[in-house]
Amino acid sequence: MGQRPHLYLPAPWVDPLLVLQPGMRHHLERVLRKKPGDAVSYTDGAGSGGLGRLRLEGVERGVEKLHPQPTPQIVVGVAPPRSTSRVRTLVEKVAELGCDRLVWLSTMHGEGRAPAHEKASAWAVAALQQSRGHHLLQIGGPVSMDHEWPRNYQVLVADRDGTTVQPDTDEATEGVVVVIGPESGFSPGEVPDGASLIRLGAKVLRVETAAIAAVALLAARR
Amino acid sequence: MGQRPHLYLPAPWVDPLLVLQPGMRHHLERVLRKKPGDAVSYTDGAGSGGLGRLRLEGVERGVEKLHPQPTPQIVVGVAPPRSTSRVRTLVEKVAELGCDRLVWLSTMHGEGRAPAHEKASAWAVAALQQSRGHHLLQIGGPVSMDHEWPRNYQVLVADRDGTTVQPDTDEATEGVVVVIGPESGFSPGEVPDGASLIRLGAKVLRVETAAIAAVALLAARR
Repeated sequence: MGQRPHLYLPAPWVDPLLVLQPGMRHHLERVLRKKPGDAVSYTDGAGSGGLGRLRLEGVERGVEKLHPQPTPQIVVGVAPPRSTSRVRTLVEKVAELGCDRLVWLSTMHGEGRAPAHEKASAWAVAALQQSRGHHLLQIGGPVSMDHEWPRNYQVLVADRDGTTVQPDTDEATEGVVVVIGPESGFSPGEVPDGASLIRLGAKVLRVETAAIAAVALLAARR
Repeated sequence: MGQRPHLYLPAPWVDPLLVLQPGMRHHLERVLRKKPGDAVSYTDGAGSGGLGRLRLEGVERGVEKLHPQPTPQIVVGVAPPRSTSRVRTLVEKVAELGCDRLVWLSTMHGEGRAPAHEKASAWAVAALQQSRGHHLLQIGGPVSMDHEWPRNYQVLVADRDGTTVQPDTDEATEGVVVVIGPESGFSPGEVPDGASLIRLGAKVLRVETAAIAAVALLAARR
């Protein structure tokens, strides 16, 4: 590829040289064939990014700037799919598309289990680096369906019978939560009162597909 | 799940009883635990669908109807990703979301190879059944970048610098083609003249993510 690598280097950034984890150094040197002096970009996953150079001892920091968090915040609440490969696709793709927060839902009919946090975070970090982003996907949960989402967040529930094609957000909307149930549906009473139903297309979608489609729709509009 | 299985049974439908392939019968009986007499739905993947019953010898046809092809047609032209799992995710997800046609592109910088047609078709059939659709994703190519798309089709090229968020289609637009290049980009001269550049978000997307996001955007609008 010859492209400049984009690295996740968590804060705090104190010294002029940021230390690389052995795995990352190995990947840079052995897989990407990078050498000391080569340009890299880096981010703390919390909005800060910089352009630096690879050195023997780590990454030498260069010009840095803060990338403001895009608004509205995009949050996906989703019942985990059953297979690990589908869970991984879900995490990777919503992270790539710029989802800010993923919250696993525990539902009556849910069939999957939330992945180990370390594993899901590693997928999110890989997607952050891949997509050259500056905001690492935050992963939380599992929470139950009566979880209280933040005030000033619009809550949408994915539903084939929904009529909303696009969320109607305004300046006061700090975030949008899209809630995606298990493939076998919600139990009566599980759907939050007052939630708008959003239609993601005419098809029956797997949970990971619905989550990815929802984030694609929301991200394209901000 | 207990849900009624949705089966792909290719045309022509001549007899009142449609024959099941041994693999499908096995799946219905052993995995889904279905018995003779159980209700199933079926489609020829070309718009026809019916409600029938499982019999020992096959599927007994019932009420049938034609589901009109949604317009505009959604076509994705894409340089295959490198890994088979990503190619599979691409085919499965765009099929689930209702993409009508997928055409593999052969580009100067493309790193992947188009999958065997039988394999890709099997993924598309599985997604058709899963999403309970009536229009099987058609798969073609590889074609070169100077391929002539049908007249009356709007051609969009996915590009980070694009400004179009949504394609501006009208009644006369029979279809929309979204062209997605390899991750290392197009060569100069490869991008078709007169194509509009569509922006799928602020991130650098993997080819399969860009394809899925584009189909999600287009499908939500028709």
